[in-house]
Amino acid sequence: MNFTVIHKDRKTGARSCLIQTDHGEIPTPVFMPVGTRASVKLVEPEELQAQQVHIILANTYHLYLKPGNDIMAMAGGAHTFMNWRRPLLTDSGGYQVYSLSELRTIMEEGVRFKSHLDGSTLHFTPENVIDTQRIIGSDIMMPLDECPPWPAEKDYVKNSGKTTIRWAERAKKHLAATRPLYGHNQALFGITQGGTYADLRMETSKALVDMDFDGYSIGGLAVGEPAEEMHRMLELSNGILPEHKPRYLMGVGTPENILNAIERGIDMFDCVIPTREARNGRAYTRTGYINLRSARFAEDFSPIDEGFDNHVCRNYSRAYIRHLLNVGEILGLKLCTLHNISFFMWLTRTAREQIIRGSFREWKDDFLKTFNSGQKP
Amino acid sequence: MNFTVIHKDRKTGARSCLIQTDHGEIPTPVFMPVGTRASVKLVEPEELQAQQVHIILANTYHLYLKPGNDIMAMAGGAHTFMNWRRPLLTDSGGYQVYSLSELRTIMEEGVRFKSHLDGSTLHFTPENVIDTQRIIGSDIMMPLDECPPWPAEKDYVKNSGKTTIRWAERAKKHLAATRPLYGHNQALFGITQGGTYADLRMETSKALVDMDFDGYSIGGLAVGEPAEEMHRMLELSNGILPEHKPRYLMGVGTPENILNAIERGIDMFDCVIPTREARNGRAYTRTGYINLRSARFAEDFSPIDEGFDNHVCRNYSRAYIRHLLNVGEILGLKLCTLHNISFFMWLTRTAREQIIRGSFREWKDDFLKTFNSGQKP
Repeated sequence: MNFTVIHKDRKTGARSCLIQTDHGEIPTPVFMPVGTRASVKLVEPEELQAQQVHIILANTYHLYLKPGNDIMAMAGGAHTFMNWRRPLLTDSGGYQVYSLSELRTIMEEGVRFKSHLDGSTLHFTPENVIDTQRIIGSDIMMPLDECPPWPAEKDYVKNSGKTTIRWAERAKKHLAATRPLYGHNQALFGITQGGTYADLRMETSKALVDMDFDGYSIGGLAVGEPAEEMHRMLELSNGILPEHKPRYLMGVGTPENILNAIERGIDMFDCVIPTREARNGRAYTRTGYINLRSARFAEDFSPIDEGFDNHVCRNYSRAYIRHLLNVGEILGLKLCTLHNISFFMWLTRTAREQIIRGSFREWKDDFLKTFNSGQKP
Repeated sequence: MNFTVIHKDRKTGARSCLIQTDHGEIPTPVFMPVGTRASVKLVEPEELQAQQVHIILANTYHLYLKPGNDIMAMAGGAHTFMNWRRPLLTDSGGYQVYSLSELRTIMEEGVRFKSHLDGSTLHFTPENVIDTQRIIGSDIMMPLDECPPWPAEKDYVKNSGKTTIRWAERAKKHLAATRPLYGHNQALFGITQGGTYADLRMETSKALVDMDFDGYSIGGLAVGEPAEEMHRMLELSNGILPEHKPRYLMGVGTPENILNAIERGIDMFDCVIPTREARNGRAYTRTGYINLRSARFAEDFSPIDEGFDNHVCRNYSRAYIRHLLNVGEILGLKLCTLHNISFFMWLTRTAREQIIRGSFREWKDDFLKTFNSGQKP
């Protein structure tokens, strides 16, 4: 994986970069739609490409459970399995072990947990999580980490940060001892933790930087803490993480959180917001989001966002999508999903253009002013 | 609407024809996917076009309830509303009045019934059903009819046939008194009834032929009667309905029923089978249908139908679609739907080619032998 900083904003920490993988290039800042179980819900891979999606995310925990490593290996990895030919990033599954499994025991060796599907007992270790990602064949892999909740006692966060560092070391060692299975290279990021404790965040970040990962994920944020706390941690990370490596803020987020993080030097984002909210009928526009289930759109034959040039706005009206949602036609959810993905791709693509043009901060302020003033929940 | 018989099969009653409408041409025999509520479930209009779909069907009863005539009129009709630019046929809603509404009273004036959605009392008359279809703007409209169940007493079928004829007369008269709203022409078919009573079937057919409709729908079949009864009625209809008008067998059906009806001179078909069964994981192949939910496809990386050249077979494996269905990803249902539509379009398109080539009967026998021998329910 190559990483090049193309342009640094003079007024903010924002930057535009280029990540090069064996499955193609990723201009940053970039939003990565979530395809947890090897499917971005409702949408085909070629439709994602048409919306200028460069990279998607899948989840190691979910794919390990189903279809399982045997089938994934037989398929020749997730790219072939799902027919996605562009870059793929996989989450380590650590977060899902904590959020989904009924019983889990964190040991030095790894995590023992019960599958949320059938209750069977499973073990994730830093090593076998790498093995699974070798089988998935993701272009960018994540090591097993321990993600503390927010708020959490400092001692707990400190210990979990140390565990995360030891596991990261083992992951890196195991990476070196294994090879890609399908001929394309696989990068490994380090995941920083430390909650919102500045010293702990700094400690885990520095330790990971010393291990020289291909990139750095910022974990344990966007878990309920106030925005200012998140910003403080991002600014701190920005000062520690090396400039010549990509920075990925995991699980973020809203347009506002994304732009605030770009301003603080973040390159990559993933979140279920555009896809999950679409399935509740929420559609994003440059003047705020709207809920297309609302009766007030029943006779509104304008596109979701007038003048926004994407497939959904070119072809369908608010009234038609509202009708589909109203009568329970799944096509309505698909059109909302596709539109929202397109909107989030536009957001990070435009941020990139504005960074290169030197007008990122002004554009961001204007955009958020319009976006927030127009919100009609 | 123009109708031209292109080729008549020498060995059977099969024929290939061309229907010309203001929204484009329809080569027959043709299968029409069902888009009841202005959406062929899960699929976008441009995806239908890519599968060589020439005409789709929507339902007057459902569209009358939602979005309702006001919104449909404001939209400028269903073509614009749903962004479908090819021909559209609408069922009159008569069948749904009988099958869906909780209480219905058939009077000379029309039908009084309770909406299956909110229980409100509504009236369908031969006249207002035409008005609604003028608002929908379908290229081919159906008159209100009364469809008796099977089996039914002869007296009941006789009376309902007479009602259907009187309603057809009123529909035709009202058609002449009204005009298309959107600049394109709208044809009106007559619907023959008479159940499986040869004399009644003959009687309604002749009466409708005398009224000179743009085409003829054969109603009241495929409602549970034995195949031989259906064939007998089709052969009888074939002898009465004029050669220079299209013949549409409503609600049919399975590949076998479709081919048997083509052999007996039918030009047009519609059925929920390919789309509804897809949502249960059933996928059609030339060697029978398969259920992709089955664990036996978990490690089967071949396409749904090896060598079948369509979008789904080119891009996805049985194992991947099985995974999607297995974990509840809706994309799996969409891929099955798109494949089945493609299969039914291939079926009627190939029937047409074989008719033109003079080898329809041999091809049909071969196809059904392979198709039926390979069924793995």
